[in-house]
Amino acid sequence: MKESDSELKQEQIRFVLMRPTHPGNVGGVARAMKTMGLRRLTLVAPQVNLPSEEAVRRAAGAEDILYTADVHGDLDGAIKDCQLIIGTTARKRSVEWPQLSPEQAAEKLWDASRHGPVALLFGQERSGLANPEVERCHYLVRIPTNPDYSSLNLASAAQIMAYEVFLKGHASPSALQDIPRYADQESMHRFYKHLEEMLLDLDFPIARPPVILMRKLMRLFNRARPSDEEIQILRGILSAVQQHVAKKS
Amino acid sequence: MKESDSELKQEQIRFVLMRPTHPGNVGGVARAMKTMGLRRLTLVAPQVNLPSEEAVRRAAGAEDILYTADVHGDLDGAIKDCQLIIGTTARKRSVEWPQLSPEQAAEKLWDASRHGPVALLFGQERSGLANPEVERCHYLVRIPTNPDYSSLNLASAAQIMAYEVFLKGHASPSALQDIPRYADQESMHRFYKHLEEMLLDLDFPIARPPVILMRKLMRLFNRARPSDEEIQILRGILSAVQQHVAKKS
Repeated sequence: MKESDSELKQEQIRFVLMRPTHPGNVGGVARAMKTMGLRRLTLVAPQVNLPSEEAVRRAAGAEDILYTADVHGDLDGAIKDCQLIIGTTARKRSVEWPQLSPEQAAEKLWDASRHGPVALLFGQERSGLANPEVERCHYLVRIPTNPDYSSLNLASAAQIMAYEVFLKGHASPSALQDIPRYADQESMHRFYKHLEEMLLDLDFPIARPPVILMRKLMRLFNRARPSDEEIQILRGILSAVQQHVAKKS
Repeated sequence: MKESDSELKQEQIRFVLMRPTHPGNVGGVARAMKTMGLRRLTLVAPQVNLPSEEAVRRAAGAEDILYTADVHGDLDGAIKDCQLIIGTTARKRSVEWPQLSPEQAAEKLWDASRHGPVALLFGQERSGLANPEVERCHYLVRIPTNPDYSSLNLASAAQIMAYEVFLKGHASPSALQDIPRYADQESMHRFYKHLEEMLLDLDFPIARPPVILMRKLMRLFNRARPSDEEIQILRGILSAVQQHVAKKS
C-alpha cells in the first residue's frame, strides 16, 4: 500500500466518544489514537470542558488530536457523512446485533474507509452505548475480556481498537525485519568440523559416544540459526583454544 | 483447553515493571492485566509508594492485583525462577536482539508458561529498558506504532500485550509438542559468567569492547534457549578448556 493511500484512509477513520465524563480518558484516547496513526476524534455531548489540564496531561504530546477534535451535540450530527458505523460494546445485547471481533471490525473499517468516512463509537464510561446509539450501528464489536472483570478503561478499549486498525493497515511487512544474514549450510558444516576438532584437541572427556555429543551440539546451534558474524566469533574462540592447546604440547 | 489448565498458565505469566515512576500507570497496568485474566504483577525498585490513592483509583476494581504485587529490589530477584523473559521495547536497538511481534510474543509466553513462570518486562516510563535489562531477555517485542509518535503509555502497552496473551490463550489449543526443560535464568547467568571467564583465561583477542562481544554471544545462546542438559555440556567444554589453560601456565 502506498503511504499516501494509507494516510488518506487513516484520515477517514473516526473515533466517536459518546458523552465522555472524564477528561483524563479523552486525553488517553487521543494519545492511543495518535500512537496508531489515527487523528480524527469526535466528541458527542461531552460532559467535560475540553481541553482541560488533565486531558492535555494524559494526551502527553497528542494534544493536537484534542485541539482538532470535532464536537457535536448529538450522534446523528457526528456520523451523518459516514459510510459505516461500528459500535463497541462490553456486554451482550438482548437484541443481538451482528457482532465482530476487533480484528474483523478493523478490517471492515479499513476497507470501507476507501469510500468515505467511517466511525467507531465508544459509549459513556459507566453505561456504554445506549440503545438508540446501538441502533445507528451496522455492527457491534466486543473486545474479548475476562468474564469476571470486563471493566476495560475507555482509553484502553480505544488503544486496542486503534492497534487492530493499525495492524490491518500495515499488514504485510512483518515484525521480523532486519534479521541478520544467516550462515549457510556449508559454513555451518565447517563450524561443526572445527568444533569437533577442538574437542578432540582438548581430549574432551566424553562419557557418551562422540557422535551423540556432536549431534546434541549441532541441534543446539542449529536451533539458534547463527548469523555469519556469529559463526566468525565462535570459530575465533575455537581457534584461540586450539592455539593454547598447541602451545602446551 | 481445560479451564483449570488455562488458569494455571495465566498464573505463571508475570508482568514486570521496571522502576515505575507514576502510580497512575501502575494502577492502569493492574486494570489492564485483570481485564485479560492476568494476575501476577511484579514491581522492580518502584519509584512510588504503593498502593497510593492514584494507583487504586486507576486500578478501578483491580486493586487486588496491586495488593498482591511482588516487589523486588532488582531485576534478577524478580526473574530468577523464570523460564522465558521477553522485554518490551519502543525503539530499535544497536545490537539487534531477536524481535517478535506482540502476537508472536504472546504465543511464546503462553506456550512456555506450561513449564513454569515467564516474564514480560516493561521499562521505565521515559527511558524504557536499560541495556543490562535487555541482556536478560530471550526476545524483545515491539508493539508497532506510528513512526512519528510512538509514545505508548505504559498501561496502554500492557493492555495491548495482555490482550494478545488473552487471545492466544483462548484460541484453539495449539499443537502441544514436547519441549525439553529449559535452563532457568540463574543457570544461564552462571553459564555466561563461566564463558566470560574462559575467554579471559584464553586472553581471547577481542577487537571490540568485550561487553559487545559478550552481548553478541548472549544473544546467540538466548535465541537457542538451551535445555539443562545442553548447558551442562557447554559448561563441561568450558571447564575442559580452562583445565588445559591452567596446566599450560
